[in-house]
Parts: sequence; C-alpha cells; structure tokens
Amino acid sequence: MSVSLSGIYTPVVTPFTAAGDLDEDALRFNAERYLQSRLTGLVVLGSNGEAPQLDQDEADRAIAAVRSVVPRGRPLLAGTGQESTRATIAASRRAAELGVDAVLVRTPAFYKGQMTTEAFVRHYTAVAEASPVPVFLYNVTMYTGVNLTPDAVALLSEHPNIVGMKESSTDIVQFAEHLSRAREGFVLLTGSAPIFYSAMALGASGAVLAIGGVVPDLCVALAEAMRNGRYDEARALQRRLSPIARLVGSAHGVPGLKAALDLAGYRGGVPRSPLVPVPLAVVDVIRTELAKLGVLSPDAASRPASAAAR
Amino acid sequence: MSVSLSGIYTPVVTPFTAAGDLDEDALRFNAERYLQSRLTGLVVLGSNGEAPQLDQDEADRAIAAVRSVVPRGRPLLAGTGQESTRATIAASRRAAELGVDAVLVRTPAFYKGQMTTEAFVRHYTAVAEASPVPVFLYNVTMYTGVNLTPDAVALLSEHPNIVGMKESSTDIVQFAEHLSRAREGFVLLTGSAPIFYSAMALGASGAVLAIGGVVPDLCVALAEAMRNGRYDEARALQRRLSPIARLVGSAHGVPGLKAALDLAGYRGGVPRSPLVPVPLAVVDVIRTELAKLGVLSPDAASRPASAAAR
Amino acid sequence: MSVSLSGIYTPVVTPFTAAGDLDEDALRFNAERYLQSRLTGLVVLGSNGEAPQLDQDEADRAIAAVRSVVPRGRPLLAGTGQESTRATIAASRRAAELGVDAVLVRTPAFYKGQMTTEAFVRHYTAVAEASPVPVFLYNVTMYTGVNLTPDAVALLSEHPNIVGMKESSTDIVQFAEHLSRAREGFVLLTGSAPIFYSAMALGASGAVLAIGGVVPDLCVALAEAMRNGRYDEARALQRRLSPIARLVGSAHGVPGLKAALDLAGYRGGVPRSPLVPVPLAVVDVIRTELAKLGVLSPDAASRPASAAAR
Amino acid sequence: MSVSLSGIYTPVVTPFTAAGDLDEDALRFNAERYLQSRLTGLVVLGSNGEAPQLDQDEADRAIAAVRSVVPRGRPLLAGTGQESTRATIAASRRAAELGVDAVLVRTPAFYKGQMTTEAFVRHYTAVAEASPVPVFLYNVTMYTGVNLTPDAVALLSEHPNIVGMKESSTDIVQFAEHLSRAREGFVLLTGSAPIFYSAMALGASGAVLAIGGVVPDLCVALAEAMRNGRYDEARALQRRLSPIARLVGSAHGVPGLKAALDLAGYRGGVPRSPLVPVPLAVVDVIRTELAKLGVLSPDAASRPASAAAR
Repeated sequence: MSVSLSGIYTPVVTPFTAAGDLDEDALRFNAERYLQSRLTGLVVLGSNGEAPQLDQDEADRAIAAVRSVVPRGRPLLAGTGQESTRATIAASRRAAELGVDAVLVRTPAFYKGQMTTEAFVRHYTAVAEASPVPVFLYNVTMYTGVNLTPDAVALLSEHPNIVGMKESSTDIVQFAEHLSRAREGFVLLTGSAPIFYSAMALGASGAVLAIGGVVPDLCVALAEAMRNGRYDEARALQRRLSPIARLVGSAHGVPGLKAALDLAGYRGGVPRSPLVPVPLAVVDVIRTELAKLGVLSPDAASRPASAAAR
Repeated sequence: MSVSLSGIYTPVVTPFTAAGDLDEDALRFNAERYLQSRLTGLVVLGSNGEAPQLDQDEADRAIAAVRSVVPRGRPLLAGTGQESTRATIAASRRAAELGVDAVLVRTPAFYKGQMTTEAFVRHYTAVAEASPVPVFLYNVTMYTGVNLTPDAVALLSEHPNIVGMKESSTDIVQFAEHLSRAREGFVLLTGSAPIFYSAMALGASGAVLAIGGVVPDLCVALAEAMRNGRYDEARALQRRLSPIARLVGSAHGVPGLKAALDLAGYRGGVPRSPLVPVPLAVVDVIRTELAKLGVLSPDAASRPASAAAR
Repeated sequence: MSVSLSGIYTPVVTPFTAAGDLDEDALRFNAERYLQSRLTGLVVLGSNGEAPQLDQDEADRAIAAVRSVVPRGRPLLAGTGQESTRATIAASRRAAELGVDAVLVRTPAFYKGQMTTEAFVRHYTAVAEASPVPVFLYNVTMYTGVNLTPDAVALLSEHPNIVGMKESSTDIVQFAEHLSRAREGFVLLTGSAPIFYSAMALGASGAVLAIGGVVPDLCVALAEAMRNGRYDEARALQRRLSPIARLVGSAHGVPGLKAALDLAGYRGGVPRSPLVPVPLAVVDVIRTELAKLGVLSPDAASRPASAAAR
Repeated sequence: MSVSLSGIYTPVVTPFTAAGDLDEDALRFNAERYLQSRLTGLVVLGSNGEAPQLDQDEADRAIAAVRSVVPRGRPLLAGTGQESTRATIAASRRAAELGVDAVLVRTPAFYKGQMTTEAFVRHYTAVAEASPVPVFLYNVTMYTGVNLTPDAVALLSEHPNIVGMKESSTDIVQFAEHLSRAREGFVLLTGSAPIFYSAMALGASGAVLAIGGVVPDLCVALAEAMRNGRYDEARALQRRLSPIARLVGSAHGVPGLKAALDLAGYRGGVPRSPLVPVPLAVVDVIRTELAKLGVLSPDAASRPASAAAR
C-alpha cells in the first residue's frame, strides 16, 4: 500500500450537540487541528470515540466528516468491530467506501466463554477476506473482558490483509510475545499511554493514544527520541505523560478525556449517557495537570475552565 | 397491569436460515410449541437469543414474529438494552409498539470503569420514564463484566415503571440482598439454572431460564414444588436439572443450547459467527443427558442426532 | 467414632494479653461460656483464631487450654493445615495427642499455580493416612486464593479417615456440587454465614460460623428451624443474621469479630499485628447491630463500648 | 553500609535429601558454583527456596549453610517474612545473627481484606525499626494475592533501614510508579524474568531472578548491556531468556526450576510435598530449551536427563 501505517495516532472523540446529536462541525474542527500537529494519522470510531454508543448512520457520518478534512497520504483508520462477523464485514465495507485507509477491528466480546482463539481466528480471517482495505486487530481487554492471545495474533499476522494490531493491554509480557511471534513487518501499536515508552523500548511500531489528542507533540517527541536511541529523554517524557494519561485513561475515561480536550482548546463536550461528565473537582485536577504541560487554552487558563466547559 | 409477571420464562433462541438470515418460521415454530407447555411466558432478544448479533431490523422482526403467536394474557418480554440510554429508549419504544408486555434492559457495559451505581440509576430512570411498557432490570455479569449492585436495585425498585429484575449471577448472597432490599412486590427472577432451587428457596418470584427452552415442564414443576413447600422434591428436581443446565450454560453457551434444542425437537440450528457450533462430541454428551431426562425427539433418539443436526 | 460431627460450631478467636502473648485464661473463659450455649462444638486454631499468626508452641497451648474446658462428648476440632504435607502431619499428630476429636486441614496455598486437584488429593490422602483422628477438608478461597474443586472433594470423601469438609466459599453452585458428589454421610459444613440458610436448604450437615461466637443461639435456632422444615422462620432468622455477619466477616474480618465479642461480653481484645483493631466508628456500628439482636453485654450497653474495649 | 545492594541475584532453591530433610551439602554445592558466576549475590529462603515449607530450624540452617560459603563483600539476603509482625521481627533478628547482609520481607497476606496500605506501612515500619540489618520490601502478588501499592512503597522508601524492594509483579505500570515515587537511591529490583529487560529499561537497580540460578551469566550479560546502553543487544538477550523463564516460572514453578537445575549440573532434586515433581515430558521440554542455551550439563546432554533426575 502507498501509505505506511507505523507511527503515532490519536483516536478522535465524538462530540455531540446540545441536543445530543452527532456534531460533525466539532469533529472536523478537532481533526483539522490535529493535522497541524506531527501526528501520523487519526482513528475515528475508536473506543474513545464512543463507537459503541453510535448508531450506524452516525458512524458513517463521523467517518465522512473526518475524511473530508484528512488528506490522502495522512492515514485515517476507522473502528468497525461489531459483535457478529457479518455486521463487522458490513461496517468495514462501508468504511472502505468512505475512504478510510484501514479498519481497526475490536474483538467481539459478548459471549466471553465462546471467544476462543479458534473463534477469533475464524472471525478475523473472514473479515480480512471481505474487507477492501487492510485490517488491524484490536485487543482492549479492559473494556471487552476477552483477550486476543499471542497464539491468535501470530497466526493472524500471516494473513496478507491483516497489517497490524492495536494492543491496549498494559501487560508488557503479552506485548513482548506479540512482537516476537508476529510476522516480520507486522505493525504493532500500543493503545496504552502508561506503557508507551516500554512498548517502544521493546520495538513497537507506534501507538494509538487517547492522550495523543490532548498532547500530540509530546507523544510524537517521545517516539522520536526512541527512534534516535535517546532513551533517557524518552523516559523523562514518559514521566511527564503518565499523570495526565492516568487521569483521562483508567481514572476518568472518555468523560475525563472530553474535559481535557475542552481545556486544551479542542471541542470535547459532554459524553453520551450513560456516561456522565466528570465532576468539577476532577476538571480542576485535569486543568492543573494540563497547565503543567503548557497546553491549557488561553481561555481555560484565564478563568475556571470548569465553568466554561459546561 | 393486567398481566402478572411472576413465573417461569424461557428466552427463545434466534434461529437462522442456511443463508444466515433471521428465520422467522423457526422462531414461530418454537414459540408455538412453548405455548403448549406450562411456561408463564417468553423472552425474545435475550442474551441467549443472540440479541447482540442482530441488527435493528432483525430485532423488530423477531419480536413481531413471536408476538404473532403468543396470545395476550401470556406475557412476552423483549430485550432492549443497548449501550447508550438513547438507543435503549428507542428500542424499548419500538418493542412496545410491537406489543411486548415489558422490556428487559441489560446494563450498558462497555465503559466498565464508568458504570457506577450513579450512572446505572440515571440510565434506568431515564429508560423507565420513557418506556411505554414496564421495565425489568437485567444483570448478567458473566457477559457484561459489570454488576448492578443491591444499592442500585433497591433504589430503582421504587420507580413505578420498574417492575422487576432478571439477575443472572450465581452469587446467592447478592441475590438475597436484592430480595431483602427491593420494595415489596418487586418481581425478582433468577436467570441462573444452577441456583434455581436456591433462589426460589429464598423467595424469588420466578426465573428466566435458557434450559427452560429444552425442559420447560421440569422447570415449571420445580417452581410448583417450591410454591407448595415440597422442598425435598424441588431439590431432587434441581439435581436432575443441573447437569444439562451446566452443559448448555457455562460450558457451551448458545451453541450448546441450540444443539440441545435440535435434539429435543425444536429448531435451534447454527449460531451466528463468531459463535461456532459445538463439536459433534459435545452434541453426543448433550444427547445422552437429554435421553436421561426423556426429552429427546423421536428423530434424535433413533439415530445419531449429531449427524441430523448439522 | 463415638461423637457425631454434624452440627453448628464456632471457631474461637485467640485472645492476647496486653504484652501480645497468648492469653489462655481468656481463651478458657470464652470456651466455657460457649459450652452453656447450644452449639455442637468448637474449633480452635481456625482462620478466625489467627492460626497463621501463632507459632507452634502457642498453637499447642491454645488447643490444650480449650480442651481443658470442653468435655468429651462435645466435639473439639483444631486447625492444623500448614504449607507442607510434612508439617501438616506433624501438627495433626500433636493436636490428636492434645485430645481433639478431629482436625480441620486448610488447603496449602502458597504455590497457587501448582495447587492442582492432583496435588491436593495427594496431600490430603497423606495427611489422612497419618492423622490419628478424623480429618476435615477446609476450603477458604477468600484467604487462600486456591480452590478445592468438587472433583477433589468427591474423590477425597471416599477416604475412611476424611469425614467431612468446611467450605467457606459463598459459591452456592459449588456447594451444591460438593453435596451431590461427595459420598453419602460426608459431613459438609458451610463456613459462610451469609449463605447459612441456603446451604442448609440444600442439605448441609451444619456450619462453622465465626458469628456463632457472638450469637450462638441464633445460629442454632436457624439450623433447628431448617431441620424441622420451618423454612420461613429460618429465612427470617437469616435476615436477622446477615447484617452482623457481614460486619464481622467480609467487611472487618478478625478485628471486627474481636470487637463484637468484647461488646457481647466475651474476651476478644486486639488482634495481632499486622491486623489492626477496627476504628471506633466501626465499633459503634457493630454495637448498634448487636443491640438490635439483644446480645450487648450490660456493660457495653450502659456506656460507649468502644471506650471500654480499648 | 559497605556493600552495595544493586545488581543481579538469584534466589537459591532448597534441596532435600531422599528422606525429605534439608540437604545442606547440596545447598552449599549450588552456592559455591554461583560464586564462580558474575552474579552480585544470593537470596536464601525466597519463594523459590520453598521458604513457606520449611520450619524455623531448617530456615536457620539454610542461612548458615549458604553464608558459610558466601564471602563478605558478596551480598547475601534472606527471606524472613512471616504472617505476624512479631514472627517477622524474630526471623529477621535470627537471620542478622547468622550474618545476612539484608532481609527480604514478603508481605503478610493471609487476611487479604485487612492488608491495607496502612497495615503494611505499620508492619514494615515495625520490622525496619527492629531489624539489625537493612530491609527489602518484597511484593509477590502471584503467590500472596495482596499488593504493596506505590503509595505504600513511596512512604516506606523514606525509612532509613528500608533500602530497597523486590517487586515480582509483571505489571510494568506499577513498576514504573514505584521507580518514580520512591526516594532517590532506593534499590528497586524486579523479580520477574519476563520483564527483566523492560524493568532495566525503566531504570531498575537490578533483579532477583530464579532463572538466574540456571543461566546466571546470561542474566548478568543482559544487565551489563543495559548499563552500557546496548539496548538492542539486551533485547536480544531477553528473547533468549524468555522461553526458559516461562517454563520454570509461571508454567511449572519451583518443580520446573528444580528440574532445570538438575539438568544444568546443579543440585535441584524433588520439591517438598504438596509440590509435585514435573512430569518427564516437561523435563524433556526444559532439557531442549537448556540445550539451546548451551547450559546442559555434560551428564544431562549425553542421556535422557529425566531418567537421571529422579
């Protein structure tokens, strides 16, 4: 393919209007601003994009909106994983028609006991056969409660239309096993900011980081330091990154991320129910962290951001 | 409401045609046969109905098909839980229009860390306000990885449009706590066959049992024995029920259930991918158990059922 | 054997002097008072007796102290489980010499990955061969992190010197499986107060309950109601029991139990470090629950018990 | 102190005679051989030393035996953690008298619910106050089921007699947090071979590795490569190390380690019951891995090692 898929991505959030509808303007606004950063590309309809909360029409419109501002040559991935193989194939085909460079396919997860390596291999093989664009595996056990094992990954990495994987687990041992067992050239991306440095130190191809939407250049700088063998500098950057990554990751999830984006001058807004916006006290904690990193928007810096955000 | 909702239900499976489409004929066939049993009513679009694998159109057609054969006075519930509050409300309204007596609303579950008691209370309250028909809470931690706590249940049971709950956990301590803390008259149903006797012994209002689709009268007999204080008899019935319940529940899930239905003369068929049919060796184990219970169809009894089933 | 081992037991706590040494006087005081209740017998050196915190000499003295006041005909069990088979055998022999009627052998647990059914079967068989007195299996997963499966229990129940089991799990499905698979006559006791009623309703032989040390007659009354088929009464007694059981069980453990004993006129005292006494606010919560049950000592009722206890 | 405690250690196994008694000759034999490697020092009575299976007298003799061959200047640590604070202090004092350079104190773990950060801080502070030699914290959640949090570690690292920690978790995020929050100079050692490289890449002070007893020089070489900034070489060494580390770690534990030692010309022998020797098929798998690493003893290479080992 003409676009190299290694690098640093951010999964864009999905903003909503006051009425709770998809806000395509805000989506384009954020995407355009990311294009001015050194991020490799964007992921639309990721877990942090509230994909499980969108209907099919909204999903299609979200892809179209982002693609309309992301030029060819800048990779755009879309999340298309659904519970059934059939629906996943349909979503992948629609995404391809809408112009994405690759699809990111989260493991099906509802029937946990039945989601064996065999079932995953069949599922991903069928999706890869049918998808017009390359497929990324996507393992996010903290949300799904199932795990795509190194056995499955090693096998699936041999499929010509499966080009890589986003592994969001913090389990560095499993990450290392994926790396040593997948085929040469497989694009393994970490989806976990707290292990970003460690994953790169093991030889990861890059990352898809929610926090990359808030501090894109810090994330890119860390990757660059690694690429140039400046481990000490990279380690120091990881230490800068970890506190905010924790806040908008494990601690406060999508609501925390959207609050952080508001404070950094992007358009985050409120998440869709049943997600609940973070309380003002948390907004203030996030604000303090962003101030330390120098990415508070002038607006958010001059007055209580929390008041402005809601 | 005119229909009492206590009693013994089965969640009907969703059969598919050879082409993988919804098979409404098979659905009606099964439902009609259940109406000849002493089951209180049916649940369509439950977890065992592969609801997460169906699209919206299929879901509506499944409800319509079952309602077309289930007479008024025989309760029909439909699963309408989606990840967003908004989608859950929409699904509940459509189900109500299609004539269901109540909706069974599985907890949203994707953003596990954010699914607090507060988030659940807001979600279910909004759904209950908007739903034209009564709402059942539905907690199925083995599939969702989240838990609806007794705190949430106690609070929600006070809502006039929340009439009951299906609790599929095997945690008898939590079940007892729901019972002692929910309002008087709240219809608490167990969704776990292995604790059926124990739940009834604590005062449950009934059950929604996948295995009730295979041995409906055995399940009804157990409930009746309990109601009449014949604990020893009920305990003996539970011992008959447990082995097959394990096979089509924790051990082999929906694929096991569908195989059992085929063997008992219903129309199960193959599950939708990524679910994989159980291997023939498992079919034979299930067949042996069904033979012990005397519910093998004449067809399945006379020759290797496994051969016939596929 | 001459003594029937079914019934209701309490595991006595191990009191310490102000200097932190074993307090045999207090141990005898408590035991003597229990003998006036309708409890079947006592367990010394159970988990709630802080057995893992005692050295060998203290363990022996604790057994001797309790046996000195418990007459023959009233069963006395002692916990003798150690990490190695060899040490468990030695402890069981010493306990037998000190006159216990049976030993309660907790599963070894340190090397969790290696504690397979096979390893447990070998271990318990060796202990049963060597022990001069009958052996009870003891499964307490909440403390050990390992599980003695129904497979292991079914097999071990056939050994002539293994007479029963204390199962402290709240997993009622596993409890039911032990019951249906162990040999006829095997004495299966629950160690979990919250499932006491449910275990008896399934046919348990009795219970070993920490809370039985605080409200012995309530526990005996529940068992008696069950034996006479008065399920409704038993259920009501369970509802009385559950709140205090939670407080001195899952919520506050041994420190909570010792505080409750102080308030009920027994000699609890402070636990051995690293256990920390419960805070005064918790003492007051326990006091309120005990007052409802009418078992506060006159002393504890007339003034802030918390002040007196420390 | 005169001895620097950073570096690479191995926890020596505890060999037993055919009669099942402590085999001090074998212990000394192994220790002497390790002294010829470039290992920094040794740990006696670690988890892999079957410490929980030894009685007090055996523990003392094991320390004395190893110290008798380990010269001053070569650090010797001993595991002294017990369930009670009191017993831990006593064990630490005895170990100090026997000449160890520091004690390695595993978290108490039995009363899991009560093992809060507060309880751990009190426990370790009391031990550090009383111990005549420096204290290492020791967190090994896979065996204990409890976790010593970065909060506790940060606090305890300030105590003048707490010099470091062995963290055996594979959780690299927690490891990084220990590093960034403990005081400057705190000696943080990983106890997990699969994350050895990753821990060193984050700035760990060294490691205590069971597999270091089988391939000491490979472990030392990895640490040296890291120290000299040769990350690629270190990563390659990690890939060599991981397969054998898995076999004698998570997969087969102490029995696997002892089998590997036999094959590499050390004296491993059989573990103490309830541990069960690994089956011959596993011995052969280990043998194959050791052959690849070039550390099979000539003896084990020339004929089926499995036959020789038992």
